[in-house]
Amino acid sequence: MVFEHTISLRVRYAETDQMGYVYYGNYAIYYEVARVECIRALGCSYKSLEEDGILLPVYEHYSKFIAPARYDEILTIKTRIKEKPTSSRIQFEYEIFNENGKIINIGSTTLVFVNKQTGRPCLVPDRISRLFDVLS
Amino acid sequence: MVFEHTISLRVRYAETDQMGYVYYGNYAIYYEVARVECIRALGCSYKSLEEDGILLPVYEHYSKFIAPARYDEILTIKTRIKEKPTSSRIQFEYEIFNENGKIINIGSTTLVFVNKQTGRPCLVPDRISRLFDVLS
Amino acid sequence: MVFEHTISLRVRYAETDQMGYVYYGNYAIYYEVARVECIRALGCSYKSLEEDGILLPVYEHYSKFIAPARYDEILTIKTRIKEKPTSSRIQFEYEIFNENGKIINIGSTTLVFVNKQTGRPCLVPDRISRLFDVLS
Amino acid sequence: MVFEHTISLRVRYAETDQMGYVYYGNYAIYYEVARVECIRALGCSYKSLEEDGILLPVYEHYSKFIAPARYDEILTIKTRIKEKPTSSRIQFEYEIFNENGKIINIGSTTLVFVNKQTGRPCLVPDRISRLFDVLS
Repeated sequence: MVFEHTISLRVRYAETDQMGYVYYGNYAIYYEVARVECIRALGCSYKSLEEDGILLPVYEHYSKFIAPARYDEILTIKTRIKEKPTSSRIQFEYEIFNENGKIINIGSTTLVFVNKQTGRPCLVPDRISRLFDVLS
Repeated sequence: MVFEHTISLRVRYAETDQMGYVYYGNYAIYYEVARVECIRALGCSYKSLEEDGILLPVYEHYSKFIAPARYDEILTIKTRIKEKPTSSRIQFEYEIFNENGKIINIGSTTLVFVNKQTGRPCLVPDRISRLFDVLS
Repeated sequence: MVFEHTISLRVRYAETDQMGYVYYGNYAIYYEVARVECIRALGCSYKSLEEDGILLPVYEHYSKFIAPARYDEILTIKTRIKEKPTSSRIQFEYEIFNENGKIINIGSTTLVFVNKQTGRPCLVPDRISRLFDVLS
Repeated sequence: MVFEHTISLRVRYAETDQMGYVYYGNYAIYYEVARVECIRALGCSYKSLEEDGILLPVYEHYSKFIAPARYDEILTIKTRIKEKPTSSRIQFEYEIFNENGKIINIGSTTLVFVNKQTGRPCLVPDRISRLFDVLS
């Protein structure tokens, strides 16, 4: 593994559904918050990446829902980047724990660096590569 | 009143919360769908408006929640434009009815025509004004 | 394959993000709408299933994002149930096409039949099994 | 005024729309987070209120959008309860400021105390009234 980062967030009422749990589609939002803070901790704000003309859309998304998350719980999300991004992709893995320390969700997303002008995939920007060079 | 339009839509599971009803924030989405179809019926696609460099952000939003909307119900939304937009604003009024014909929500939104380049309010575009001239 | 169903829906403004495309987390909502209509076409309303004390939470969710979906586009979603559900699970597969007929997203979800009282997985309800018996 | 509370939160990517700003419907979520933390600061968790059989649905909602909120900004939300709730209602007022201290949104919501069993409005629970007695 090359980098790991942990955040906590509280489940909002808006994120629940009538089953009384967090709606499954909202885990994608939790993953987004987690990976944005992960790369911020690495030294890069995703916002500034977009301002530099690089988009980072999601290409693949996988989630396994082990146990439900409930309203008002504080969830802990561990985000891992297992490999330094090489070509035009970067992968994040997630584990979500509830307040009792029980793992309730695991997932992964693969994102693609895209040139905003051309709309085409591009190589990992140098400013991102360098962050990983410092780590290893 | 200068124009009225009615649409129906079905409540999605994602739109409910753990109270078992539609989350109050999601009515804003219903209003959005309703007013977009209202102006499409008038003869204008909001998408084309944005392509012409005009944005239409919401300036004011009011909702009264009379009775809950439930999962899987088909809601009927009546949208009214009571006055031809003059300066840089347009107002929509909404009434939402459930499957029993009971009124469950009323609301209104005021939107502002904004020049995408400058980010400043602009006059109602001619192509919008003309749609109302035909009506009256 | 045992059952296939197709629906169409229009992308809402609320579903876009500042990249100008549908936010990746919202495909889960599209899948939900598609599978609910799929089982309705089979002869079962998911709402009535919950009223009978059976919940159907998502256990696994996979998505591949091939091309972006844009505001106001009418998307066509094909939902497939490839195998009759046997134990306590049911799997749905999805293909999403844009207005040009281009495939833009594929995905799958596995859901678990859960007894609302106990919160434990349960066997596929008879009323669901029977729908598939009629098909084959 | 009887009580005021301030929170901060960061705008999520999921909350933006293709205009590049926070979607207007998402302010309702910000208000929800703000008022839940406001009553927690007062000494009451909304979650425990529901566990006691009291729901607190929104009856009226008003928002004025003064300036846009942008992705990744940290917003500051001031929530005010101007009057001790008396009959069955409680009103919250909100002001949202961006990172430059500029006010970008004001709003208010009126919520109704509802008995979960009967679905009917009920008097403000004693445990809530008492919180305000301590204040004054």
